[in-house]
Amino acid sequence: MAGPPSTYPRRLLPLFLGLFQAALLLFFALFVTYDEPSALEKDTSLVANQVYSTFPFFQDIQVMLVVGLGLLLTFLPRYGFSSLTHNFLLLNFSMQWALVLQGLLHHFHHGQIHLDLHKLLISEFAAVTVLISVGAILGRASPCQLLVMATCEIPIYLASEWVIVTCLGVLDVGGTITIHIFSCYFGLGVSKALFRATQQTLHPKETPTPSSDLMSLVGTLILWVFWPSFVAVLCQPDDAQHRAILNTLLAMSASAITTVVASSLLERDGRLSLGHLQNGSLAGGVAIGVVADMAVPPVAALALGSLSAVVCVLGFRFLTPLLGRKLTLHDQCGIHNLHGLPGILGAAASVVAVLVASKDTSGSDPSQLSPVGGNASQVVEGQWGRGGVGGQALCQAAGLAVAVGASLLAGLLTGAALRLPCLARPPERLCFDDSLYFKIQAESPGPDGSAEEGALALKEQI
Amino acid sequence: MAGPPSTYPRRLLPLFLGLFQAALLLFFALFVTYDEPSALEKDTSLVANQVYSTFPFFQDIQVMLVVGLGLLLTFLPRYGFSSLTHNFLLLNFSMQWALVLQGLLHHFHHGQIHLDLHKLLISEFAAVTVLISVGAILGRASPCQLLVMATCEIPIYLASEWVIVTCLGVLDVGGTITIHIFSCYFGLGVSKALFRATQQTLHPKETPTPSSDLMSLVGTLILWVFWPSFVAVLCQPDDAQHRAILNTLLAMSASAITTVVASSLLERDGRLSLGHLQNGSLAGGVAIGVVADMAVPPVAALALGSLSAVVCVLGFRFLTPLLGRKLTLHDQCGIHNLHGLPGILGAAASVVAVLVASKDTSGSDPSQLSPVGGNASQVVEGQWGRGGVGGQALCQAAGLAVAVGASLLAGLLTGAALRLPCLARPPERLCFDDSLYFKIQAESPGPDGSAEEGALALKEQI
Amino acid sequence: MAGPPSTYPRRLLPLFLGLFQAALLLFFALFVTYDEPSALEKDTSLVANQVYSTFPFFQDIQVMLVVGLGLLLTFLPRYGFSSLTHNFLLLNFSMQWALVLQGLLHHFHHGQIHLDLHKLLISEFAAVTVLISVGAILGRASPCQLLVMATCEIPIYLASEWVIVTCLGVLDVGGTITIHIFSCYFGLGVSKALFRATQQTLHPKETPTPSSDLMSLVGTLILWVFWPSFVAVLCQPDDAQHRAILNTLLAMSASAITTVVASSLLERDGRLSLGHLQNGSLAGGVAIGVVADMAVPPVAALALGSLSAVVCVLGFRFLTPLLGRKLTLHDQCGIHNLHGLPGILGAAASVVAVLVASKDTSGSDPSQLSPVGGNASQVVEGQWGRGGVGGQALCQAAGLAVAVGASLLAGLLTGAALRLPCLARPPERLCFDDSLYFKIQAESPGPDGSAEEGALALKEQI
Repeated sequence: MAGPPSTYPRRLLPLFLGLFQAALLLFFALFVTYDEPSALEKDTSLVANQVYSTFPFFQDIQVMLVVGLGLLLTFLPRYGFSSLTHNFLLLNFSMQWALVLQGLLHHFHHGQIHLDLHKLLISEFAAVTVLISVGAILGRASPCQLLVMATCEIPIYLASEWVIVTCLGVLDVGGTITIHIFSCYFGLGVSKALFRATQQTLHPKETPTPSSDLMSLVGTLILWVFWPSFVAVLCQPDDAQHRAILNTLLAMSASAITTVVASSLLERDGRLSLGHLQNGSLAGGVAIGVVADMAVPPVAALALGSLSAVVCVLGFRFLTPLLGRKLTLHDQCGIHNLHGLPGILGAAASVVAVLVASKDTSGSDPSQLSPVGGNASQVVEGQWGRGGVGGQALCQAAGLAVAVGASLLAGLLTGAALRLPCLARPPERLCFDDSLYFKIQAESPGPDGSAEEGALALKEQI
Repeated sequence: MAGPPSTYPRRLLPLFLGLFQAALLLFFALFVTYDEPSALEKDTSLVANQVYSTFPFFQDIQVMLVVGLGLLLTFLPRYGFSSLTHNFLLLNFSMQWALVLQGLLHHFHHGQIHLDLHKLLISEFAAVTVLISVGAILGRASPCQLLVMATCEIPIYLASEWVIVTCLGVLDVGGTITIHIFSCYFGLGVSKALFRATQQTLHPKETPTPSSDLMSLVGTLILWVFWPSFVAVLCQPDDAQHRAILNTLLAMSASAITTVVASSLLERDGRLSLGHLQNGSLAGGVAIGVVADMAVPPVAALALGSLSAVVCVLGFRFLTPLLGRKLTLHDQCGIHNLHGLPGILGAAASVVAVLVASKDTSGSDPSQLSPVGGNASQVVEGQWGRGGVGGQALCQAAGLAVAVGASLLAGLLTGAALRLPCLARPPERLCFDDSLYFKIQAESPGPDGSAEEGALALKEQI
Repeated sequence: MAGPPSTYPRRLLPLFLGLFQAALLLFFALFVTYDEPSALEKDTSLVANQVYSTFPFFQDIQVMLVVGLGLLLTFLPRYGFSSLTHNFLLLNFSMQWALVLQGLLHHFHHGQIHLDLHKLLISEFAAVTVLISVGAILGRASPCQLLVMATCEIPIYLASEWVIVTCLGVLDVGGTITIHIFSCYFGLGVSKALFRATQQTLHPKETPTPSSDLMSLVGTLILWVFWPSFVAVLCQPDDAQHRAILNTLLAMSASAITTVVASSLLERDGRLSLGHLQNGSLAGGVAIGVVADMAVPPVAALALGSLSAVVCVLGFRFLTPLLGRKLTLHDQCGIHNLHGLPGILGAAASVVAVLVASKDTSGSDPSQLSPVGGNASQVVEGQWGRGGVGGQALCQAAGLAVAVGASLLAGLLTGAALRLPCLARPPERLCFDDSLYFKIQAESPGPDGSAEEGALALKEQI
């Protein structure tokens, strides 16, 4: 049984990470500095304001990604350490990798790279795509496979984001299209290419226990609370940011209630499914991102939140099993229901919002929809100016198409690469099992001691 | 056994929530917009400042209510999902319901309703009353009963808050009287009317386990950390807010230490009770709310924090069992000890603070006590001007009386309404049991599998 | 078996705390007030800015200490309540005690003490030293011993901080030398003097379980997220603060990845150790503190983060067992690996940073290294002016020596005092056991009911 295929990756992980870290140091040593403070250019209160207007949001997002998302993924009862740690590791790796890539791009144009909080934030956003995509293959892929996936996904994301936002001028302040839809279909592509036509049967270690489900629910609640910061952080600190926060709050509140309604109606005995709660409550936040800073009425945010929760719960109930049966598409965490469907809903809503706004204002004042500076880093005012409101609606649709198409294709290719033998997948018996990656003690040293069993199984395999 | 009375509520919950959500959409579509940005009236930096001065506090409060309070309630070991989810659901429902009611009131006077963060915050405060009141009947009431309770409590709270703050001019920046005392006696009234003279015996599923107690303790610590934001959010950003933060920090710190002293002294073997710790540490935050922004000396905050912790622990040790025996009054979470007694202490302290301040300043400068703009939304300067300092002391006492009286009466009536057969209570065997509301898997599939048992019991009942 | 030595401490704890609380009230009543608001001197927007620039950081630090550090210490599976509660209690006690001592010092010089958020923050920093030192003896010391330790450590810390920062002019914005190194060697000194030559064998209750390790890992992640606030809170809100935040983020990110590399390489089968992850990920934050606001290049922050993680993991793997065997030095949580070694690394880095900066600028502009107002409360500009850059490098080294020397000596003396019989240690059988301090129920009422056993053991002992 034993030998290279299983033991090799154990050394591959530190090797890969170690080399990457060394390369990062070299890159930073050569090219990266902080902004030189210059008495002439700099206004102290301006810098202070930048720190105060971004840093609290940045911290909120860190809590979401490190603690909230980490806990959400611990619903696999024997895979809690792996979920938390791989999530944490991938966040840091992907952020650093995005920093390097963005730095290189910038370097070829402008020379020395000046690091600031905003650049870190943009890299963090890139890392989010990896964390979402992982959900499709969680528990069945080795950390090496996940790192290779991250290595491929980050540059493709940066290219796709550049096409969608800079070239097409898509308005997407909360990353609904650029982050959520992109990462969802990328993850599904990876899953399809990695597992091919294998029909995944229910793994005995896959079923959540009450205590793992409880931790996961706490993760959901943390994500739910801080989601407005994620959506609004890139807005200029004015009306647009205020509106983005309110829209997100309304959408998430509607999602929370509608999820209970939908989940309760779908089950014959009216009992709620924890999977629905853990995901549906957040669906509104995914959908609202693309229209959050537009001048949509509050009722639209509520409606979008409700609808996306319904779509998410329906997806879990019907679509995921269907995709599994018909397309042998494996989606461990249901990312298609949380990020894909609500994302598409949001993108569609943005098309409507653009068209409605054009009617409202008789085409004379499109700036109402795109508040000046609403998203300074992404809005390309000229685009709208050129194409008019109709053109903008078309752009939003084109952005959606690009995100879905590019990510699916890239995901399939990446997934094929993950089948390389040197990245050997965990053996089926040790999927969803921390004991493959962590030195752990047995929880209850009773006769059904699960950890011993795991350790035995491990010895057998290796 | 089976049939309508037990199965009906399973459809009632989604029906009720679904209709409410539809009505909410209609209401928002007709009446609610965002503030129109107008170049003439608006100053960008002003809006930005509003967002920055309120939003971090708002997020802190969301963490408190959704994560902190949710976890605090998970001390019931088999009721964790219900505690977290019902708390989350009620927060969203009550907030939306408060938005509607406040909007309607505003609409009849001023037309179109302009939504902003401050209005959401006020609605969130209204929702807090529901979350506190639930503590009295947690585990023995169905979600439908809780929603009906929320439906009744919110309008009564709004009316009571209007009488206390606007009519009587009571100073209560942290909601000690308007929120804590009101919700406590409302909850006790509901409990009394709902359970009547039933002597509640200890339910086998009611006893916390170490792991559920640990989660609950983490919830307490989260509430403890963020409490200053709750008390100070409505202060104007000046000295008063600074003082409110400091007073709350001092009171909570004194509470934490005094709780250990009191709990340790009360037990024969000196071991601490987790229930005492989970509640007593927060008592200071309840009591300080009403005087937090007044010009009381720091020692008063410390003393109030210590006293309220003592009162809270004594309440758990002696008063709760006594009320249970003598009045057959059931108080599951001991809200009377955490919100009632410390609240009354705080209200009494506010009377003293007003009177002492009048002596200090020989009645010539009452404005020292009520800093200008100390709580712009609640302070009615005129009242004090009219009645003088003595009048203000009387007002504080009258506010307390109104809060206790109105809430008890309204609670009794609401509790009677909750006895309607269509809102059927959970059967005694399935009280404190998640399996009635959630699809859950067995934690340990051993011979004492508790979830199977629950499911069996459920089948029997329905 | 029974009698005084074991029962006495049960009354000692509330007595000690009660008397302290009473003394605190007296002290506050006599000497402490809030800043008098004066229309002439005060600018409302200035006060508001102070609140906004400090309070969010302060809250972050509270979350770190109360929730993050508390959870990190819950890796002992039967000691979770004690870890959380003793940590919480010591934080409050030490903060109040530091307030009193700082107040007394101030009082003798300036009369009335005006409390503000900054003074609370400084006291909180003092309290951190106690929370760290406790790690060396966690689980084997009674709460009374811990309180006596805190009583001794706070004044010694204040004196040592005064010597290091005010007299020597050491630059240490993140408290690497003054807090981390000091508290580490203080704790080790206490441990050595308390346990003397007792070779500690592995206690059966000392081994983490998966669920206790998971909670601990969540604690690590919370600390990891908020660490930048801890390092940057005392910087002036300008470039220096921005740089301190970025440096800390980079160092922590490098630590996270390097820890995985190092831990994976050290184990024969490549599996990660949770202890390494829980501590190594934070090592970068400890090391970066002393240079965070200096004008070091970003690559230095990355390198320091990586190196400190390596040092931390190596310490756990080799140094801690060695110290245990050779010096019979007991370090329960491995504080020497998390706070000692990375701290020394950081201090050495600060010497290099000072020297390199002097070369870079040809000695003409040392102010580049020490940004004006980089740490207003601690930087003594004159010192640098007097001694030049070389002098500053010497100062940094001297600061390190003072911190290590003073803390070791003081720790040894304090540890000897903790051997007083009246502070009786927990009996060996009940070390690492909550049932000695808390009224708890059995988790699983099976035949191996651990709580009953604990209670029996307790009765036997007392």
